[in-house]
Amino acid sequence: MSPRLSLKFAFAAATILAAFGGVGHAAPQPTTPAQDKAAITAVMSEYNQALNASSTNDCLALYAEDGVFMPPYSPSAVGKAAVRQAYEHVFKTITLHVKFTIAEIVEMSPQWAFVRTNSAGTNKVNATGAMSAEGNQELFIFKKGADGQWKIERYSFSPTNPPHE
Amino acid sequence: MSPRLSLKFAFAAATILAAFGGVGHAAPQPTTPAQDKAAITAVMSEYNQALNASSTNDCLALYAEDGVFMPPYSPSAVGKAAVRQAYEHVFKTITLHVKFTIAEIVEMSPQWAFVRTNSAGTNKVNATGAMSAEGNQELFIFKKGADGQWKIERYSFSPTNPPHE
Repeated sequence: MSPRLSLKFAFAAATILAAFGGVGHAAPQPTTPAQDKAAITAVMSEYNQALNASSTNDCLALYAEDGVFMPPYSPSAVGKAAVRQAYEHVFKTITLHVKFTIAEIVEMSPQWAFVRTNSAGTNKVNATGAMSAEGNQELFIFKKGADGQWKIERYSFSPTNPPHE
Repeated sequence: MSPRLSLKFAFAAATILAAFGGVGHAAPQPTTPAQDKAAITAVMSEYNQALNASSTNDCLALYAEDGVFMPPYSPSAVGKAAVRQAYEHVFKTITLHVKFTIAEIVEMSPQWAFVRTNSAGTNKVNATGAMSAEGNQELFIFKKGADGQWKIERYSFSPTNPPHE
């Protein structure tokens, strides 16, 4: 191939690659378990920040479309619209200042992982300003979407402190 | 092959197969997703019965060695010894009569599945005989062991009823 032809060929190849990249349907690059763990850890950190910021939108951005949120004292919120309502209710009622500690991240397949955590901090009742100690245990199931993003598919948690009586 | 040789060969093959079967290290037969769902549904039914029978042993038989039980108002019980203690405490404190309803069984890989359920029924405080309505939402993560049995790896749940105040 002459240098000119070779250049033409390379340009054509680059154009084709750019076109495929441009439509955004390219399969995500394969990732290593270490990369997946780092990505999931980053999502957990974003979730922690979203919770302390009382931001329904930031929490929702981390959920899959068919995600399920299972907060105590409330029926399971199934699907993103119900999950949104549930977070709006939480943030209207209380303000959280908590820190999540990851106990384990287990990758079950290249697409699925679970995360078990503990969280501790304070809980302020917005209506009265009353503060209490918050302590919870959490189980998240994550799925990696076609876009390569890890999203919350299922999330169940419960308090570790005795009930207020 | 003569009929006699053929018989000898078949006998030798059967002996080898029996020996491999006998040591119990044969890989489990591949199963279909429908078979896995049926097997997991059966384990859920056994768990429901074990709970209503207040049987720690029957509950424990359904857990993986490194299983984690996350009951509300108590730290996560990590590993079978801690899980046993947690169930002993539950059954000493209360007697349950509940029915689980499976909302979904999702097979994440040939080895991993999750189950989301609701349970409802009654809860009797053993010390006082006081009865109350029990309503919970549950998230189980199951793993299929080398023996082909689906076992509880992680289990988180919380009440759906408002707290007693």
